Amino acid sequence: MDRVEALKRIAFEKKRFDGFLVFNAANQMYLTGVSGETVRATLACVLIPARGESRIYVYGVNYEQAKAEGKGFRVELVKRREDLIAKIAAQVKSLNIKNLVVDSMTVEGYRGLMKGLRGQVKLKMQSNLLWELRKMKDEKELELMRKAADLTSAGMKAAYETIRPCVKEIEVAAEIEYAMRRRGGWGTAFETSVASAAHSAFPHGGCTDREIRKGDLVVVDIGATYHHYCSDMTRTMVAGKPSDKQIKLYEIVKKAQSKAFEAMKPKAKAKEIDAVARNIIAKAGYGEYFVHGLGHGVGLEVHEPPTLNSESKDTLAVGNVVTNEPGIYLVRFGGIRIEDTVLVQKSHGENLTKGPYTLETVR
Amino acid sequence: MDRVEALKRIAFEKKRFDGFLVFNAANQMYLTGVSGETVRATLACVLIPARGESRIYVYGVNYEQAKAEGKGFRVELVKRREDLIAKIAAQVKSLNIKNLVVDSMTVEGYRGLMKGLRGQVKLKMQSNLLWELRKMKDEKELELMRKAADLTSAGMKAAYETIRPCVKEIEVAAEIEYAMRRRGGWGTAFETSVASAAHSAFPHGGCTDREIRKGDLVVVDIGATYHHYCSDMTRTMVAGKPSDKQIKLYEIVKKAQSKAFEAMKPKAKAKEIDAVARNIIAKAGYGEYFVHGLGHGVGLEVHEPPTLNSESKDTLAVGNVVTNEPGIYLVRFGGIRIEDTVLVQKSHGENLTKGPYTLETVR
Repeated sequence: MDRVEALKRIAFEKKRFDGFLVFNAANQMYLTGVSGETVRATLACVLIPARGESRIYVYGVNYEQAKAEGKGFRVELVKRREDLIAKIAAQVKSLNIKNLVVDSMTVEGYRGLMKGLRGQVKLKMQSNLLWELRKMKDEKELELMRKAADLTSAGMKAAYETIRPCVKEIEVAAEIEYAMRRRGGWGTAFETSVASAAHSAFPHGGCTDREIRKGDLVVVDIGATYHHYCSDMTRTMVAGKPSDKQIKLYEIVKKAQSKAFEAMKPKAKAKEIDAVARNIIAKAGYGEYFVHGLGHGVGLEVHEPPTLNSESKDTLAVGNVVTNEPGIYLVRFGGIRIEDTVLVQKSHGENLTKGPYTLETVR
Repeated sequence: MDRVEALKRIAFEKKRFDGFLVFNAANQMYLTGVSGETVRATLACVLIPARGESRIYVYGVNYEQAKAEGKGFRVELVKRREDLIAKIAAQVKSLNIKNLVVDSMTVEGYRGLMKGLRGQVKLKMQSNLLWELRKMKDEKELELMRKAADLTSAGMKAAYETIRPCVKEIEVAAEIEYAMRRRGGWGTAFETSVASAAHSAFPHGGCTDREIRKGDLVVVDIGATYHHYCSDMTRTMVAGKPSDKQIKLYEIVKKAQSKAFEAMKPKAKAKEIDAVARNIIAKAGYGEYFVHGLGHGVGLEVHEPPTLNSESKDTLAVGNVVTNEPGIYLVRFGGIRIEDTVLVQKSHGENLTKGPYTLETVR
């Protein structure tokens, strides 16, 4: 319940709301400790009132789990014929909430809630209240994230050992995921991507049953989860001997990544860190081919605040965990990206994911 | 583009809309063929106008991929400083669309769009237009779903061969996923669940590093994907020799599942199929412990229409693919669920996932 108390300080003392409704699956997990998937909610809703008991709304299928895991919350069963939104609206009114804030909601749900509240309660959509907490990882979270990063590094080692001509992209994915799972991984933070040749030029190239050929660039983008916490890591390798152009491009991306890493310190502006990497790639003549931001926060979700790109207003702080992932993508030729998950420490960044940084596979 | 034409007949001829906006990731994939994840959109939006070119809106990071894969669509690059919703609103107006329908949207996006349309266009949220198409699987889709189901059955075979006392839940998950991947699986449709002992009484029990003990019930709920299509299958097994009570409960669930399966024919009402299974479990005295509906549709997403529960208004039709998954969950004692993915054929249901149906593991 420490997190609920911290949220109350932000939402009710600093912001003057007096009730908080949580529909986002990862936010629900963060506040209640009830396990599940961060992309599909286990709970129907969570209500944190300024005065009165915090409560979980849950359908029958997950009722016993919510009771067992949702320590400190009152658990409200939503019955089969019951209207969830009407039930929430009635309780919001009976708790005398006047300024309700909601993290996220469907348009239909929002309209139903507005109707149910009958103008007696002010309703505000605001997704960022919990980010103030979630983007600062505590020691317990960091322990899980270090483990997730170690598992991911082990998966990447398997990629270096598996990639060679005539192996299929999905065969490489099988070995990566097995390596992460065997060491205790809980799953993957996103679909494992092993994108070779022309596909490597798509930042979200995915993974098919294509056979890797000699000389192909292969971008491997993977992330293990551990106790629901994510990690994110990319290496680019060549099946066989790299060409001069592949080596040249790789060195540019590597330099951009190293220099951006050195800039990852508390109080650094996210857009300035992005600029460090972007300027190096631009000066080498490939600026227009670095088609995405430098990075993003990682935690219960694989894409979280803070955001590192040229438009970002974020500033780094101790306890942020973010990715550092410059890339160059040349249509038909292929792409190169190098990505680590970085923890912002007091005086420096710490790479949670590990080397090697090489285009060459283990043969 | 056949799917776009079919959608136009439903949305524009039958329903009298003249524009369709698609934000849902699986809907986007279904219509455009642009690959990615069904839980995270690759594209920013898709617009299908009654008159004029269908178009994809995409940020720079996925622009080249959308151009390569989005055959038949005009591809609109959304630049870094550009406002997606404002851009869409302008094009909707210039296409002279008057009755726009949207599949799903955030509250913030909806408000922005309303503002951008300045009252010149009617806007309706309606999520079910594409379901009319998506819930009828064509031959090409069924080929992929059969393969996904075969992979899932192979994963379950690995579970039967791995589960024994002293093995951890996540170790079983590792072997299941590796078996599916090695045979060509593209990933998992949801987090692999291997829930033992007390956890097995939670329908979404998940998977931890708990060691399975002699006599534990273990509910294994898994699904491989193949070319983005899902499968869903559950078996319950006992580590060691099953007790009389475990066998008795298993036989009740098995009977409920078999009888429901026999009822899965075209024109059968979903709520009546649910009742077949529910009545068998209720008559045996465990009605209140069957805490969820009988099943759900499966396709690009693992939970789709049609829905099989006591409130459903759906009717089965040839080409539907649905789960058949009754269960009994006793707090502390444990749970039993048996689930198959079923294709509705002309005169009968066809189990796509395979046996065995036994509590006993392979020793």
